[in-house]
Amino acid sequence: MEEIKMTPIGIIHSPYATKEAAPIQGSFCPEGKGTVEVFAEFEKGLEDIETFSHIILLYEFDRAGEIELVRPTFLDDEPHGVFASRHPCRPNSIGLTVVKLLKRKGNVLEVSGVDVLDGTPLIDIKPYLVRFDCHPEASEGWAAGKEKRAKPTGRE
Amino acid sequence: MEEIKMTPIGIIHSPYATKEAAPIQGSFCPEGKGTVEVFAEFEKGLEDIETFSHIILLYEFDRAGEIELVRPTFLDDEPHGVFASRHPCRPNSIGLTVVKLLKRKGNVLEVSGVDVLDGTPLIDIKPYLVRFDCHPEASEGWAAGKEKRAKPTGRE
Repeated sequence: MEEIKMTPIGIIHSPYATKEAAPIQGSFCPEGKGTVEVFAEFEKGLEDIETFSHIILLYEFDRAGEIELVRPTFLDDEPHGVFASRHPCRPNSIGLTVVKLLKRKGNVLEVSGVDVLDGTPLIDIKPYLVRFDCHPEASEGWAAGKEKRAKPTGRE
Repeated sequence: MEEIKMTPIGIIHSPYATKEAAPIQGSFCPEGKGTVEVFAEFEKGLEDIETFSHIILLYEFDRAGEIELVRPTFLDDEPHGVFASRHPCRPNSIGLTVVKLLKRKGNVLEVSGVDVLDGTPLIDIKPYLVRFDCHPEASEGWAAGKEKRAKPTGRE
């Protein structure tokens, strides 16, 4: 199939300069604030985004290491398939985080619950809609009982 | 910023051959079944995916029309910014749908709640985790009170 080309639409600024400093997931560090800077040429696309309390960020894992299809994760020492985990090193380096939208100032969104590295290229923003995206009945799969912990050292 | 290149990891098969036939969102047609065919070279990455009841599909809106940053949507006749809607015609044509995982057969996943066109290129699969992705407190923004309806004719 044909290659798909994408161009960043902005940059995510976060308090996390290194992989070690970034939380495993944004929801594990809901107080972590960041800003989403959308490039001026795309600012019009933000119209009415301030009516939403939560948004979905899609971004590039631009500093991800080597891709392995099966490997341990930050949450578990057992290996799991990369499509059964949120591991950053994956074919097509796209990350997804739901963040809280605190405020919009023109082309800049103040958000909390961010988990990405500072300077991460932004690919897309979508509104989070309970009717589409909220599934409290979902199983936790292999992650059941795997709690927030320190990132194992040396693990990508 | 640098261009990002992606390669499809599979194909989504759905009952929807045309844009008119596809539901506005998968959650509006939860009984709509489809199959997610992951190319053989990526099959190992599916290990343990069957432990999850819900998965997130990221895919290419490969038949999307012209991009407009502000436009009416299927749910509302008022225009909204493209990043404040799930409109398919957006900079970086990535779509996101949470589907129910019914069964895995090797490299093929049977799912329900699919809303994409038949033959849609698959970019990524992520497990849906309540702790990360479920936010029942989220506002509905401009979409509050906008109910499922027939797609307005002639609207992309």
